[in-house]
Amino acid sequence: MVNRLFEHATLVTLDDESHIYNDASLAIAGDTILALDQIPTDFRPDERIDVGGKVIMPGLYNSHTHAAMTFARGFAEDLPLSRWFNERIWLLESALTPDMVTWGTQLAAIEMIRGGIIGFADHYFHMDKVADVVAQNGMRALLAWAVFGRDASEVGTTVPETVDFIHQTQGAANGRLRACLGPHSPYMCPEDFLARTAAVAVREQFGIHIHAAETAGQVENSLRLYDRTPIEMLNHLGLLETPSLIAHAIHVNNIDLEILSRKRVNIVQCPSTHMKYGMGVTRVPDMMARHINVALGTDGAGSSTALNMWREMRLAVLTQRQAFGTATLLGGSEALHMATRNGAQALGFTNSGILAPGYAADCIIVDTTATHFQPLHDIIAALVWCTEPADVSDVMVAGQWLLRERDLQTIDEAEAREGFEEALALMLASPYTHFQTYDD
Amino acid sequence: MVNRLFEHATLVTLDDESHIYNDASLAIAGDTILALDQIPTDFRPDERIDVGGKVIMPGLYNSHTHAAMTFARGFAEDLPLSRWFNERIWLLESALTPDMVTWGTQLAAIEMIRGGIIGFADHYFHMDKVADVVAQNGMRALLAWAVFGRDASEVGTTVPETVDFIHQTQGAANGRLRACLGPHSPYMCPEDFLARTAAVAVREQFGIHIHAAETAGQVENSLRLYDRTPIEMLNHLGLLETPSLIAHAIHVNNIDLEILSRKRVNIVQCPSTHMKYGMGVTRVPDMMARHINVALGTDGAGSSTALNMWREMRLAVLTQRQAFGTATLLGGSEALHMATRNGAQALGFTNSGILAPGYAADCIIVDTTATHFQPLHDIIAALVWCTEPADVSDVMVAGQWLLRERDLQTIDEAEAREGFEEALALMLASPYTHFQTYDD
Repeated sequence: MVNRLFEHATLVTLDDESHIYNDASLAIAGDTILALDQIPTDFRPDERIDVGGKVIMPGLYNSHTHAAMTFARGFAEDLPLSRWFNERIWLLESALTPDMVTWGTQLAAIEMIRGGIIGFADHYFHMDKVADVVAQNGMRALLAWAVFGRDASEVGTTVPETVDFIHQTQGAANGRLRACLGPHSPYMCPEDFLARTAAVAVREQFGIHIHAAETAGQVENSLRLYDRTPIEMLNHLGLLETPSLIAHAIHVNNIDLEILSRKRVNIVQCPSTHMKYGMGVTRVPDMMARHINVALGTDGAGSSTALNMWREMRLAVLTQRQAFGTATLLGGSEALHMATRNGAQALGFTNSGILAPGYAADCIIVDTTATHFQPLHDIIAALVWCTEPADVSDVMVAGQWLLRERDLQTIDEAEAREGFEEALALMLASPYTHFQTYDD
Repeated sequence: MVNRLFEHATLVTLDDESHIYNDASLAIAGDTILALDQIPTDFRPDERIDVGGKVIMPGLYNSHTHAAMTFARGFAEDLPLSRWFNERIWLLESALTPDMVTWGTQLAAIEMIRGGIIGFADHYFHMDKVADVVAQNGMRALLAWAVFGRDASEVGTTVPETVDFIHQTQGAANGRLRACLGPHSPYMCPEDFLARTAAVAVREQFGIHIHAAETAGQVENSLRLYDRTPIEMLNHLGLLETPSLIAHAIHVNNIDLEILSRKRVNIVQCPSTHMKYGMGVTRVPDMMARHINVALGTDGAGSSTALNMWREMRLAVLTQRQAFGTATLLGGSEALHMATRNGAQALGFTNSGILAPGYAADCIIVDTTATHFQPLHDIIAALVWCTEPADVSDVMVAGQWLLRERDLQTIDEAEAREGFEEALALMLASPYTHFQTYDD
């Protein structure tokens, strides 16, 4: 067990009171935060690290993504969502391989770690491969193996296999891995399949990660088919009885909000995708007023193009202020909370997300001494509005360095790039995809 | 005169056809682009630069800012515009010094150059200081000395002095400096002052840089006082007879748009400020349909907090797509054009803004070989959606390096930081400002 003492840091705790300590110390014992500011006199650090006035803060959580989809970055730009799916992404995915998932996820991890993201909620295929990648690269993740439930031969897996995967993965890698069920959505999955999934969730006490209420059309279809909104459908089918995470949840009415609040559902908005595809604005102020936990995600690189949580944080503020025409909605602390502890809570890492004694030693260092942060009138505003991924110098999860002075510590970047390019070349050469080129 | 040959570059020209050349060469003779792709056989470079597959593209133009206002970064967050002005910014500015303008502008220049910005339209005070800074740091700028016209003792200058400044500055620093009149706005300036300014503009053939139509309230007041919209007022008073640049222009009606089109007014939207303060959405699609030149600006760091034109580019797309609920409005090329050649045109640098033979050797190198750009399915999308300031490795203006392999070439950063801190400390200690602290 390594004991580390960080000195001369600005500690941005993001706890309930958003305590900030200037020129302070942080003591880490192994994988756990021992003390902030007031360091016990008998603490014997193996290593002292002079932070030089930079900020130490909790790491970021990307609470909804399809990490492997880096392979689709820029593959389907400026298209409506329906054409994005039908003409581009689902065609490409028809040739998906386990290797593409391995290396696509590792490429995403490089981008995420460099940008200060320590954990992610993944919803995709070949999740056993993602578990291997995360076990090795030191991040935290909540893994949901996507299932459509429409066809036994479809990409993905069947529920019994999913159940085995969750049992094997839950709590693995010293608790850095978590897993839950991943039915795709009420608009893609048949009703009876969703009901069966709900029964498994309750029996096994598994969580659920699902998409819902992304477009107004989905709500209309749901009302027409079932006389229920998508959120009402999920509730009716019993899918909200265990810890659940719903991505998007844009088109919800007040009854939906009551359900989400009562069932303590975690909502993940992905502002860059919501805005880029003109999908609408998640009702975050109404959700916060009902004490619904709202986290943030980048969605996949196939839609958002970048996996940059600083951007999502800013857009979370900007999208609301544009929608409501006010300059006072959502402050900097709220944006930071959505990207840190709200994400930790949504993913079930209840011992992460803030800097406090007893919490996991999960933190990042932001080099706020750079010129583009000056002057530091307001450290919270500086973090929200000035930080880009390149400003993150160090990333630590459970006491292990993933990034140290901007060098990746757990990933061989050249190997990942090579594996990624080989897997992508094979996929693009597949008969399923080769008739489709970007200039069509 | 130095002749340079860039080799193995991806050339993103951003010309009318948005030509892209892969693994191509770019020949620069002194301060001018000589050739792209097809290099004359008799070209004798003094220096050959292997670009290694990175992108060379035109530099960015920040077409509306108050550069020196880096001193107010994070000083007035999460406030409505009226309180931002009255309770924070104007109080702080009451203690403004020439030194603060010098060093505030230089601090902004460091941030702008590092982020690939080669030119800016500045609207502020002590513009002689800004001219000195820009003459030395190698950027391009259109300088407008802000005048309110309300009080002889006000911060700023009077029109005769402005006229002298413009004559001295126009075309200085080998044409890198341009200047124009800077009446603040129709909502701050008295009618007779604006009419006098218009007469000077026409007599001297000076351009105008002004704020207008930022809020719905301004339009209501204008209609009540003058029975004319702000744009109609500017036209009525004769302020649109010479090349003009209007910042914001959010709340405009169709008659306003006809005026702006007929008078060939350049419009600069500042999406991050517009969104952050809930000010509304500039009618860019309607302006483009009327062939109005629309450029982009960061506004001052006091409102936008960051001077990041990549961010403004993305927000220019996202704000429209959110407003109109569509995924197809404004493509990547249009966003890039707004930040490059449209800006060059708005600032009057007609020989800049695209990569083409005969144009100024103004360009930047973006390191698209980094992992977070992979795979490069779509280079335009990669530039718009993946690029952050730290991805800009090199910046050249008129054949002079301002940034080379991420090192500033024309600015002593340590000196600028020291000068900035001293000037800010003096300003904050002034009796005009010291009763006001952020925690009040």
